[in-house]
Amino acid sequence: MTSLPIITLTTDFGLKDAYVGVMKGVVLAIAPRARLIDLSHEIEPHNVAEAAFVLRSAYRYFPQTTIHVAVVDPGVGTSRKALAIETGHGVFIGPDNGLFTHVLADQAAVSGETTALHGASAVELSNPTYRLAEVSNTFQGRDVFAPAAAHYARGTPLRELGPRVDRVALLPHTLPIFRGRDAIGVILHVDRFGNAISNLRRHDLPPSPSFEIAGIEIDGLSLSYQDARINALVGSSGFVEVAVQNGSAASTLGLSVGDTVVVKGRP
Amino acid sequence: MTSLPIITLTTDFGLKDAYVGVMKGVVLAIAPRARLIDLSHEIEPHNVAEAAFVLRSAYRYFPQTTIHVAVVDPGVGTSRKALAIETGHGVFIGPDNGLFTHVLADQAAVSGETTALHGASAVELSNPTYRLAEVSNTFQGRDVFAPAAAHYARGTPLRELGPRVDRVALLPHTLPIFRGRDAIGVILHVDRFGNAISNLRRHDLPPSPSFEIAGIEIDGLSLSYQDARINALVGSSGFVEVAVQNGSAASTLGLSVGDTVVVKGRP
Amino acid sequence: MTSLPIITLTTDFGLKDAYVGVMKGVVLAIAPRARLIDLSHEIEPHNVAEAAFVLRSAYRYFPQTTIHVAVVDPGVGTSRKALAIETGHGVFIGPDNGLFTHVLADQAAVSGETTALHGASAVELSNPTYRLAEVSNTFQGRDVFAPAAAHYARGTPLRELGPRVDRVALLPHTLPIFRGRDAIGVILHVDRFGNAISNLRRHDLPPSPSFEIAGIEIDGLSLSYQDARINALVGSSGFVEVAVQNGSAASTLGLSVGDTVVVKGRP
Repeated sequence: MTSLPIITLTTDFGLKDAYVGVMKGVVLAIAPRARLIDLSHEIEPHNVAEAAFVLRSAYRYFPQTTIHVAVVDPGVGTSRKALAIETGHGVFIGPDNGLFTHVLADQAAVSGETTALHGASAVELSNPTYRLAEVSNTFQGRDVFAPAAAHYARGTPLRELGPRVDRVALLPHTLPIFRGRDAIGVILHVDRFGNAISNLRRHDLPPSPSFEIAGIEIDGLSLSYQDARINALVGSSGFVEVAVQNGSAASTLGLSVGDTVVVKGRP
Repeated sequence: MTSLPIITLTTDFGLKDAYVGVMKGVVLAIAPRARLIDLSHEIEPHNVAEAAFVLRSAYRYFPQTTIHVAVVDPGVGTSRKALAIETGHGVFIGPDNGLFTHVLADQAAVSGETTALHGASAVELSNPTYRLAEVSNTFQGRDVFAPAAAHYARGTPLRELGPRVDRVALLPHTLPIFRGRDAIGVILHVDRFGNAISNLRRHDLPPSPSFEIAGIEIDGLSLSYQDARINALVGSSGFVEVAVQNGSAASTLGLSVGDTVVVKGRP
Repeated sequence: MTSLPIITLTTDFGLKDAYVGVMKGVVLAIAPRARLIDLSHEIEPHNVAEAAFVLRSAYRYFPQTTIHVAVVDPGVGTSRKALAIETGHGVFIGPDNGLFTHVLADQAAVSGETTALHGASAVELSNPTYRLAEVSNTFQGRDVFAPAAAHYARGTPLRELGPRVDRVALLPHTLPIFRGRDAIGVILHVDRFGNAISNLRRHDLPPSPSFEIAGIEIDGLSLSYQDARINALVGSSGFVEVAVQNGSAASTLGLSVGDTVVVKGRP
């Protein structure tokens, strides 16, 4: 391999404790040349949906061979599976709890609460050769996911990591719902600037859309954050977001994750 | 190049969202061997002056070939220019809004609201070859600045990135004002420990200075944070700062960015 | 050296200021191929004990040749020594104020307020060749510790960095106290999830322990965070921690660092 393998990390571990550093130590002890890149460690504790959104926003901008490790894992130590999924654009490693919903939806049509994998291969990370010698019930980011990523980065093939898995868990509300002439989406994420980002994409919109959110009507799409006081625009992630000029849409308009966005004007 | 190119990043993106990770993905997809170093991503949103101070504190400690990318960009998507500036110590990439004021002031005399460049060359990042294929109005850190840094790191010469620029924007209040026997500075930055850092440097001070700030008089310069309860000292950044022993000067004395510091005793 | 030297950083500098970035610049200017890994920069300002715990949780997961730099340094600019300590698992660089207490206790028996070094070698970082040209009284992470780590990473032997030191400072309360049939520990750390982590290890416990903490009794050891509403379990760091199911033990039970944990049932 002429370039060094890249491993991204997304967790809810925060940056106060050493948990993230420990995962990096485990990776480097196995794969000393791996490049480690943080996506976010400030995911709200146990908020799988937020991490799923962050992964979806970021993975396309990394080389196709990148390994993305995500550990937001409220079920650690229970029977939930540990997964590695090879897709056409990136390898995804983490617990089987819906973390990869948006990534899989972006790469192929999925639906329901679990999905068969279209054009992707997944395995359960159960081969003890590629875990730490002792696997705790409380920190499998260190004991299972970091070692799997590191061994894969060194060239261990997916099938060596464990047995094939045919279906993986999905989050609900991945895709907008279409009802008559309306499209109904939800807010997936509020970013640092207070922009409220929905699951609606440009191709879900009619030519002249209007939006209803939290009792407010927004007419038409803006092109930048400075176009109007309250803007609906297709943001940098490819999703419709609501933004307030020089302010926070979330606090100004009282928006939060899970709020409904109705699009009117579909033909 | 025997050593790997270093690219530093300074933004107001925070670490909760994936924006910083996405910029790193874009860099590594173009320049897989680049070393990425975070200066700060916790700049207060849209606070150009704070980012300008952070850059000034840090750039001298990096190798002269380092590429510093700064994206605090309230005017993203408007007509403000995107810049790359080659200086005698580092290359600086970011929007033309004053982010590089202190760096330029440190390397050459500058004044006014814009400046001609003394011993530095600047270009506008308008060559579409060195941007992402699609440039958004909302995230040019990803679409314009990260690609420019990565291409430069791979050896693309400055002049290829776009046409030459002769003047760049400056922040006001970069330098102290001298009035009679007083020097008048301002607080540029309050750090994590509550130390209030001004724009006054040692060579602005008389041999036995006294300071007036927020109604308090401080007599003489301390040598460490433990010398007195309230200390004025030349801090690690080379600027005069006000510090309270085992406490926060900002909260104890009610100091904040923009407060005036008067130095008395100039001959 | 076939793999690149790894240098970890642990500080109370936070991520808002450029202090951490500056230390990295200093390292890379001396040792351009060093790998820099953050353990934590969110140590509470001046909280040496918290940093000592973080180092202890992490160092074992890094390769044995890793260099760990820790700068939580309330005595910067005073007469406290600057140290480098070579151990059987890692080299530790930082001020002589107890930061390495748990690491040394983990590798050999230590006791008292200072300790002789068993199987470890330490030097005082006083050789000006391996410091920056100007050493400030306020930021020795930049001027002393980062350069020492970088020179060591490039192959400078320990004895070149300064004269040998025979005793180093220790924190009190490193180890549990045994009184009759009770073992008495303390809470060392509260992590992001609100888990309260003590200094008690599995070998300090009887076969059927019960715990008293903050007026609460906990009977027996849990195996995962989901076993009971209130769990005492041996956590991923190897220490007994108190955890509340899907919640924060610290806020639910009112626990904080320094609280006593009594173990009953020792034979």
